[in-house]
Order: sequence, then structure tokens, then C-alpha cells
Amino acid sequence: MTTPSAPQGDEGPRWLSDEEQRVWQSYLHGTLLLEDHLDRRLQRDAGMPHIYYALLVHLSQAPDMALRMTELAKGVKITRSRLSHAVARLEASGWVGREECPSDKRGQIARLTESGREKLRASAPDHVSAVRQAIFDRLSPEQVTQLGEIMRVMATGLEPEGTGADLPWRR
Amino acid sequence: MTTPSAPQGDEGPRWLSDEEQRVWQSYLHGTLLLEDHLDRRLQRDAGMPHIYYALLVHLSQAPDMALRMTELAKGVKITRSRLSHAVARLEASGWVGREECPSDKRGQIARLTESGREKLRASAPDHVSAVRQAIFDRLSPEQVTQLGEIMRVMATGLEPEGTGADLPWRR
Repeated sequence: MTTPSAPQGDEGPRWLSDEEQRVWQSYLHGTLLLEDHLDRRLQRDAGMPHIYYALLVHLSQAPDMALRMTELAKGVKITRSRLSHAVARLEASGWVGREECPSDKRGQIARLTESGREKLRASAPDHVSAVRQAIFDRLSPEQVTQLGEIMRVMATGLEPEGTGADLPWRR
Repeated sequence: MTTPSAPQGDEGPRWLSDEEQRVWQSYLHGTLLLEDHLDRRLQRDAGMPHIYYALLVHLSQAPDMALRMTELAKGVKITRSRLSHAVARLEASGWVGREECPSDKRGQIARLTESGREKLRASAPDHVSAVRQAIFDRLSPEQVTQLGEIMRVMATGLEPEGTGADLPWRR
């Protein structure tokens, strides 16, 4: 069950094949390089990292441009503590406001401000160009479809419905 | 060039189609969930985040299990400042040692220690299982091949050879 050079485990894990190792390395390199690239571009052009931008986009697509903090964390797949930190920074920049949740005194609502909407309008064109140049202009239409399906399979497996899985926004 | 609801830019960017937006969302969700999952598993089982583990793996595959810091940053696609911080932590844990570079007084070499090799041997089985369960056991062989090719195209585009591109390890 193990390759000769692989370390021995008690349960004889199935080590990755050479091809799987190459795919895994490419995955790590591609995803790290893309995240770094988008972060740099957004920091330069919009003054914020990619995950902050994703929060503004998510709020802009919500009814009344507002969401409970727990829903926002779930929507963007981050922990509540990371969200709290990010929203505090976005609030300081005037792009997001926080309000008490009317139906739950302990809950909070984050709302995109007019200034936040303006920020999104101003930075969206460059960000979309960056995403397009890095991915959609490089892949064939078949590869775009394949990537979508592969990522859906991965995300669904990591976020099984109706289970007590250890997911970021539950922490 | 813009969809009705899209913000207007000076240059009329080509907004993402509905399908491209879905693929992009799936990409963000899949990659964030996987990174969180692997980070949590490694933190629990090996006492370090995923990027630290990747540094140990990279050193273990180098000649004499040692690399110049600049080569290590390039190999793992991170900035030099992030690497310095990580290596300082790995050194404090006894898993990596730092030495002066004989050929360059200003350069430094990072070397995997015996304790670092033991740490890798002990934590590899669980990590490989986590990667396999999250990706390779879920995708068909065709999808694995497709993912590798897609990620190679993306990484190559973001890391063009012989250019002055703004890459993490040059900062």
C-alpha cells in the first residue's frame, strides 16, 4: 500500500501517485499565485485585500444590501473571527455599517453603505479584468465548464449538508 | 459591452457571464473550504498550518534537504517576509535550521532537521488522507487530469518566464 520511498504509517495510507502529486503541486501553485495576484491588484487599485472585496460583493447581492454576520461568514466561507476583523476595517473605511439585528438582540447585521457601493462600482472593472485575464481568457470554454464542475464537487464534499462538519463560519 | 445591471467603467470591461460567475463562485468556495480544511487538520494533527507543512515537504525534496531562502520562497510561491516569519517559527519548533550561505554572505540557507524529518514522517499519512478524501477520491480520473491541466495553464500565465512580473518571492 505504500511506495518504497514513502514514510510508513500505521494504517498504510494510499500515497499519491506521481500524476496525482503533479496535479496537487499545480493546484497549490495555481491557487496561491492567483490569490496573491488578485490581492495585490485589489490592494493597489481599491485599497483592500481580496477577501474584503468579496464581502462587499456578497453584501451588494443581498436583499437591501444587508446580511446577518453569521450569513455573511457562511456566504464567503470564512470564520466569524476573521469576518469580525474584516468588517471592523470595512466599517472604519466607511464602506460597511453594522446594526443590531431586530429579531435577535445578540445578532448583528452588516450593511453596504452608499460609499461602499461607490467603491465597488469604481473597482469592479479592474478586478473583473484581472479575473478574466488570469482564468477565463486562458481556458477553453470546455475547461471553464470542467473547472466549475470540479470545484462544485470539491466544495460539496467539504460542506456536506445537514451534518456537524467543522466549517469556518460555525467557529 | 456591459450587462444592464453592471457598473459602468471607462473602458467598458467585459463582465463575466452568468456561467463564468457561477464557475468563479465555485472556485472561490472550493479553494477556501479546502485550504481551511487542510489547515485545521494539520493544526490539529501536526501543530502547524498548511503553508508550514508545505515548506517542510519542499525542503525534504531538495538536495541535502536544504535550500536558499530565496529558492524556498519561489518553490512554495510565497513572499520572502512570509517565509522569514514561517521559518522563524519552524526553527523555534526545531524542525528547520538556518545557516549562512557559503557563496553569498547576505544569503541564508534553510535546512530540514532530523526532528523536522520525523515530524513529516509522523504527519504525512493523515495529511495525504485528507488531500485524497477532499480531491482525488471525489474526482474521476478524467477530472484529475483536467484539473492538473487547468491549474498548469493558470500558474504559467501568472508566472511568465523571463519577465519582470510582480511575483511573491521577488518582494
